Amino acid sequence: MARPAPSSDVVSIDPRTDTVVEEVAPATSDTDVARIAARASAAADSFGRTSRAFRAALLRAVADGLESRRDEIVAVADRETAIGETRLNGELTRSVYQARLFADAIEEGGYLEAAIDHAGPTPMGPGPDLRRMLVPIGPVAVFGSSNFPLAFSVPGGDTVSALAAGCPVVLKAHSSHPATSKLCFDILTGAAATAGAPDGVLGIVFGQAAGAALVADPHIKAVGFTGSLSGGRALLEIIERRPQPIPFYGELSGLNPLVVSPGAAAARTTEIAEGLFTSFTVSAGQLCTKPGVVFLPRDAAGDALRDQVVRLANASDEFTLLNSRIRASFFNISARIAGAPGTRMAAGAGRAVDRIRVAPQLFELQAADLTDTVLEECFGPSTVVVRYSSPAELEAALTRLPPSLTGTIHCTDDELDGFEPVIRYFEANSGRIVFDGFPTGVLVSWAQTHGGPWPATNSLHTSVGVTAVRRFLRPLTWQNAPAAVVPEELQEGYTAIPRRVDGALVPATSTVAATTSADASVAAPSTA
Amino acid sequence: MARPAPSSDVVSIDPRTDTVVEEVAPATSDTDVARIAARASAAADSFGRTSRAFRAALLRAVADGLESRRDEIVAVADRETAIGETRLNGELTRSVYQARLFADAIEEGGYLEAAIDHAGPTPMGPGPDLRRMLVPIGPVAVFGSSNFPLAFSVPGGDTVSALAAGCPVVLKAHSSHPATSKLCFDILTGAAATAGAPDGVLGIVFGQAAGAALVADPHIKAVGFTGSLSGGRALLEIIERRPQPIPFYGELSGLNPLVVSPGAAAARTTEIAEGLFTSFTVSAGQLCTKPGVVFLPRDAAGDALRDQVVRLANASDEFTLLNSRIRASFFNISARIAGAPGTRMAAGAGRAVDRIRVAPQLFELQAADLTDTVLEECFGPSTVVVRYSSPAELEAALTRLPPSLTGTIHCTDDELDGFEPVIRYFEANSGRIVFDGFPTGVLVSWAQTHGGPWPATNSLHTSVGVTAVRRFLRPLTWQNAPAAVVPEELQEGYTAIPRRVDGALVPATSTVAATTSADASVAAPSTA
Repeated sequence: MARPAPSSDVVSIDPRTDTVVEEVAPATSDTDVARIAARASAAADSFGRTSRAFRAALLRAVADGLESRRDEIVAVADRETAIGETRLNGELTRSVYQARLFADAIEEGGYLEAAIDHAGPTPMGPGPDLRRMLVPIGPVAVFGSSNFPLAFSVPGGDTVSALAAGCPVVLKAHSSHPATSKLCFDILTGAAATAGAPDGVLGIVFGQAAGAALVADPHIKAVGFTGSLSGGRALLEIIERRPQPIPFYGELSGLNPLVVSPGAAAARTTEIAEGLFTSFTVSAGQLCTKPGVVFLPRDAAGDALRDQVVRLANASDEFTLLNSRIRASFFNISARIAGAPGTRMAAGAGRAVDRIRVAPQLFELQAADLTDTVLEECFGPSTVVVRYSSPAELEAALTRLPPSLTGTIHCTDDELDGFEPVIRYFEANSGRIVFDGFPTGVLVSWAQTHGGPWPATNSLHTSVGVTAVRRFLRPLTWQNAPAAVVPEELQEGYTAIPRRVDGALVPATSTVAATTSADASVAAPSTA
Repeated sequence: MARPAPSSDVVSIDPRTDTVVEEVAPATSDTDVARIAARASAAADSFGRTSRAFRAALLRAVADGLESRRDEIVAVADRETAIGETRLNGELTRSVYQARLFADAIEEGGYLEAAIDHAGPTPMGPGPDLRRMLVPIGPVAVFGSSNFPLAFSVPGGDTVSALAAGCPVVLKAHSSHPATSKLCFDILTGAAATAGAPDGVLGIVFGQAAGAALVADPHIKAVGFTGSLSGGRALLEIIERRPQPIPFYGELSGLNPLVVSPGAAAARTTEIAEGLFTSFTVSAGQLCTKPGVVFLPRDAAGDALRDQVVRLANASDEFTLLNSRIRASFFNISARIAGAPGTRMAAGAGRAVDRIRVAPQLFELQAADLTDTVLEECFGPSTVVVRYSSPAELEAALTRLPPSLTGTIHCTDDELDGFEPVIRYFEANSGRIVFDGFPTGVLVSWAQTHGGPWPATNSLHTSVGVTAVRRFLRPLTWQNAPAAVVPEELQEGYTAIPRRVDGALVPATSTVAATTSADASVAAPSTA
């Protein structure tokens, strides 16, 4: 193995003190990236053919492994991210739940979209026997995010989506929590080994250059990425230079506009103020669903609501951000927003902060003064309040925003009709529209969507929730195939999954346990 | 309207005589492209909110309109393409059937992937009410192919997929059949007007520059393209330069390898020879599923099979290709293949052909001589026979091929186990694997897949069959939304579509007719 120079070692930094705590791993060399990707590719066929019961058992082993080392994981993640043990415990719970939910989902089997069209006459002549289902796309590169060291990183949604689909995963460890990444990776590989998964189903690389080499590697067949728009653009450019382009699933950016109607501001002033303050400061405002621009009416209720948020912000503790790069960015973007014409700093100005911690900030301006400068996404405990004086002014202001992951509206029942243009704007320009609540907190479930038109994401899919598995699957049809060849899910008489047979939906009438090996710990190819 | 110079008019050419028959339309100016795309965008919201019953009625009106002018359409398409009235009648039947099948599918409603998670406790705390379904992506640009002037052009699969999804369509008329495109477009717009669809739901542009401008236009939200790899690459490059990238669904290329085992060659010599000859010469070999490389055993049965194909080819009529560009390409690529080391022309050499028509060609070489030169896709009645002497040699040869839309294998039951590596290769490198048949003829149905890894297509989706609709949809989730806001399909108690409620699949228990307006000809928004 070609060892890089020590200067390129990946180190773990404590953001509370801005000091290096340990060297975690050498930056992975190009040679090693190629070797790891090739191992993943070699494992893809056998892993892709494991039964759903086998992969469900693997995911549950992952969940158990994470749960069994909860305290250790939370401690190292907190040391590397300063996120705090309460939220990190919640994030671990979420990661564990997520792995188990995907296990349930692949056992249920609807995700396969299995369909059988029997041979027979058609208006175009005799039709063949066609059997279709989704199959794994192949090795997936997963880039974790800085702000979710667990739920959107090594043991996160992209990883379990890909494993559920039957795809090997090569992780790019995030530079902001490499030790957490390494610990979780070891737990995942332990679970995979215990479950009997093929060697190469999980791999990890360290260092930015290794991540770029990974995306360029011909063995990689899809990329999952959660991070900045610029980071996503850089990976997309690498993909565009590949001889064979591959799908890129980037969760990239979001202002997450939140609109409060005059009626809601008057009727629920305190409730909205407290919810809003929590929503833009939870996790130090470092959430991709943070409401980054808030539209309040230009009236007394809007003033009162703003004043309450200002009081909460000024009374708040300071926050430690994830790393020095994000902190520098927070200060730079904040300065630009503060300097925008017509913009004032309603909270946070002059707050004493030390070299490390930052205070919550609230900027305020009139809708007429809205410019692109104040619409720059600012990771951290900060939001921009825009005051509007009429529905027309609000609607015009919204059209200046880029699409987001979410759009939120607080209004009374009486105002609903009048706010229809706002609702339609959010339906067209986000992946989730929230009523009388707050966008932060993304439940992992069947009906969730965490996506949206570019630059929120560039895909037609969600990265949170069960349907995230679809990103790593592609359809395959067997025509007039001998029964010995087709997967068990497409055999005549298989009843453990919902299928579409000759166009009609046929629900499952048995469970997977009845038709698969009782010993799910042994990898059993699902096809001949 | 800025009229381009007459020299840029789009003309209709008769390929049987290589002469201009008529001027069809001026090349669309950039100004007009922008105007047409803006009209589509203006129609997107209202059309996207029409009921499924409304869009089903629209698709059926399209089908009826095409059917009612069958003779006229077939005549002009034949004059422009020389495809022949028999196949064009079949293609029209297919287009009509396709429109009606999509109408049935959207009425059934499973394509919406509707899901409801009711509010309640979760391991991460109280969960909100989440309601998800797929919604239209917005205006779609559709580029038809030269070789299917109906089924993959103006009234083709991409158009009806997009309309079914609720997306306006802007067509790029193919330069090889502009008159057919214009006639079909007029029929479609007539059907849309009769159905009461919003103005702007259908648009058309003429000329290559207009197509490029269309893909760059910010109002366009997805592109469907059937054509060459180089043409697809050119559109992808335009997309990459957009500030907001959009999905590109290209059906681009395919060698469609066909493997015959020793046992099958011996047992079904004549059947396979006749089927193969038909498959590579039907529609003058201008099908994206044409078997372009055929692996025959190096034995007496393989010789006999080849000899029969050679006899059929040498006795065959000549064919008129779609246009002069394709004809020139056919001769150029054929010459390169003929000149490849170890390659001989087994049929077609020295055949007398006139300036327009071409004879079927069969090239032959040993697997050891396989090079990229003979693996160039050659549109037209030509195929390359590769002789193999062992399973190992066959498997090694297959790894030299790019992925394809299809892979075909002829073998006996006894040989199935030995051919497992070939089957696995095809499963990993195509979208449809055909047993003991031929890849041409793609049934429009639920279980069809017309796609495959790059360079076959670049997507995770099919462009033929009902699931093609998924390409033009994206998920949207409503969180804690008032009932007045969510679409009818996500209302409590709605029973006309299958849904996933709290994780469990709930089949439909009523039909769409029971819950939608009896007068489906009036556009009724499906949401408040």
